[in-house]
Amino acid sequence: MPNNPPPIDGARVLADLNTLRGIGTYRTGVHKPTFSDAHMGSLRWLAERLPEAGLAAEVDGIGNVVGTSAKPGPKLLAGSHLESQNFAGWLDGPLGVVYALEAARVINPDATIRGAVEVASWCDEEGHFGHFLGSRSYVGALTEADIDAARDRNSDRTMREALASAGLAGRPRVTAERGRHVGYLEAHIEQGETLESADLSIGVVTSIVGIWQYRIVFTGEQNHAGTTRMAIRKDAGLAMSRFCVAVDESFPKLSGPRTVWTTGRMTLDPGAPSIIPGRAEMLFQIRDDDAGVIARLEQHLRALAADVTAQGGCVVEVERIRTGTPARMDAGFQDAIEAAARDLAGGKSLRMPSGAGHDAQVLATIMPAGMLFVPSIGGISHHWHENTADADIVTGAAVFVDACLRLLASTS
Amino acid sequence: MPNNPPPIDGARVLADLNTLRGIGTYRTGVHKPTFSDAHMGSLRWLAERLPEAGLAAEVDGIGNVVGTSAKPGPKLLAGSHLESQNFAGWLDGPLGVVYALEAARVINPDATIRGAVEVASWCDEEGHFGHFLGSRSYVGALTEADIDAARDRNSDRTMREALASAGLAGRPRVTAERGRHVGYLEAHIEQGETLESADLSIGVVTSIVGIWQYRIVFTGEQNHAGTTRMAIRKDAGLAMSRFCVAVDESFPKLSGPRTVWTTGRMTLDPGAPSIIPGRAEMLFQIRDDDAGVIARLEQHLRALAADVTAQGGCVVEVERIRTGTPARMDAGFQDAIEAAARDLAGGKSLRMPSGAGHDAQVLATIMPAGMLFVPSIGGISHHWHENTADADIVTGAAVFVDACLRLLASTS
Repeated sequence: MPNNPPPIDGARVLADLNTLRGIGTYRTGVHKPTFSDAHMGSLRWLAERLPEAGLAAEVDGIGNVVGTSAKPGPKLLAGSHLESQNFAGWLDGPLGVVYALEAARVINPDATIRGAVEVASWCDEEGHFGHFLGSRSYVGALTEADIDAARDRNSDRTMREALASAGLAGRPRVTAERGRHVGYLEAHIEQGETLESADLSIGVVTSIVGIWQYRIVFTGEQNHAGTTRMAIRKDAGLAMSRFCVAVDESFPKLSGPRTVWTTGRMTLDPGAPSIIPGRAEMLFQIRDDDAGVIARLEQHLRALAADVTAQGGCVVEVERIRTGTPARMDAGFQDAIEAAARDLAGGKSLRMPSGAGHDAQVLATIMPAGMLFVPSIGGISHHWHENTADADIVTGAAVFVDACLRLLASTS
Repeated sequence: MPNNPPPIDGARVLADLNTLRGIGTYRTGVHKPTFSDAHMGSLRWLAERLPEAGLAAEVDGIGNVVGTSAKPGPKLLAGSHLESQNFAGWLDGPLGVVYALEAARVINPDATIRGAVEVASWCDEEGHFGHFLGSRSYVGALTEADIDAARDRNSDRTMREALASAGLAGRPRVTAERGRHVGYLEAHIEQGETLESADLSIGVVTSIVGIWQYRIVFTGEQNHAGTTRMAIRKDAGLAMSRFCVAVDESFPKLSGPRTVWTTGRMTLDPGAPSIIPGRAEMLFQIRDDDAGVIARLEQHLRALAADVTAQGGCVVEVERIRTGTPARMDAGFQDAIEAAARDLAGGKSLRMPSGAGHDAQVLATIMPAGMLFVPSIGGISHHWHENTADADIVTGAAVFVDACLRLLASTS
């Protein structure tokens, strides 16, 4: 790596992040569902910035932006995403994109540095229409039939309709040129409180959890809430509540130290005040960086469901609808981030697994990948309160660019 | 009463009920939300039939149909409702309206019978926009401001908008002429299995339960489902599940023999698979024909909520949003129905409380009121499977008309 790395422009990084917060602003955060006007405006903003970093780019047929460099030498791919959860924070996604943009602006025009950083924004990391649709498209793991089947989880609008109204229908999808990149580097807010509570600046991600998602359906008997005696009811909602409590009581005995499980949605059918629900449905997920732990918990989940069904009041069906394999981050990438943090963040870094899913786990299926975290204030995430101190954002950018330089320099 | 009561026409009763099932048919039932085309079509059908029974009628400004007789002598008011729950049964409401129509057709043109039956269809008994809005309007207990505030519980459309699109905006509302009626008689399907399981034909309603309805809100902390450790979560959905299980375990110790309680709706906010819900809401109701029992259970409900709040993870707020007072049915009306059942249903009747709410409890606030039940097959109600044997429908009609004759004859 060069003896005198060119300085990053911290004010420019903060200004870019605030510009992106200004597109689709919601309170102190943003509301940018995938393919919304605010999301598309953010993609156009990025595509217009990339030429400043010597990159040719456009928005492709799945909503990815991938900037390509004509500079000779090794290429490092870097990026994140620009859509948000609904009514959520300003840094979840944009931070990694702006760091990548800053790295490209610093490194690519400098003829004394060998190689270039190529910048990507992956579409729909937040899963409005599916799971990592953008990065899966780039690595060649998304078929046209997958896109045909995808629907907006909130409105039931098809992805095809959304692509058409965003003006992307019919555009080609950009896919990875195998062997082109030395690897993929992504920065993200931690979304937890590990770094903040230990007064650290940089998380060096060792692995990304696998997420197994389930739809669990309880079938009882719909009936009148006034005339049906308690003794003969088959209340699907009550069965669901009992199931959730049983999960909460028994999972800790079988889980690993960092396993988490969440019921994110519950619905009763028909959902009327005077009708005993005949059907209830919940979305449930388990995360761990050890697939064996998840498999063990799934086995227990199915046993709990069988117990409820055997009791006869209601039938419980457990359907796994997502199987995300945990991913290991490349050892060389971890070393590069840690070394950069030693030089530019006073060594205040920690190796840690990621409890959140990230596009890096998809890119890791075709190239070495690494991730860097910056602290989240109060650990808050997926909420418009989400924030990171400006000083931490700037330190993170410096470490990120330095890690990029180390990774480019390390290639033969 | 007359020695030779005129015969009812059972085939006509069944044909009318099937005609009403043909308006807004859903499978073997109907889908007739209040003010839907199917509901309005059913009201017009009734208004067109009433002149055959010597009654003048139109649809009023709240969607009630009240037929008025010019015949001298005592008047008995009879009816029920024509809208349905969503995707529900064909008899819940129409049965009582067609019985009343049949009674009017048999009694009113017969100059040998003193007095007349006046027929009513009360709007929105099923509570799409509120609670007994039609019958409350008729008894003078519904203000214009109440109508201004009413909204469709499913679409959030205002009642004013619905009235306008149904063509009822600006029409006057018909209200009761005090002293005009000897009382109000309503027939309904039982909606439970008490009659069927005892092989009985007629239920003589002694009282109608009070319904106290609650909105219960759980406030925790919304956060990321991957990065937030289990130990520090404040999961509003889990708090709601625990609360429901606690209610189910403790209520039986404090309830009466026929008390029922139901959670009809549960929602998590924001309801996304990867977000720990920061807010959860449930609709909960308690029914009993003893207001003291309900009050005791409410006190316990609030204590459970205070316990959860005191534990600190989540805050629980209990808001009572409906307070329906139990109503006693008139003793003379009970006697008349029982006597009619003795003569025309082989005495196969049972005095019983109504676990469902009915317009009769509203009419009971201004005049003597009575109710008659016919059996529900399998006790099923508020579902398109709802049904009653044709023979039971015809027997019920005969008992109903006979009870009308007895009530008219009993007046001085």
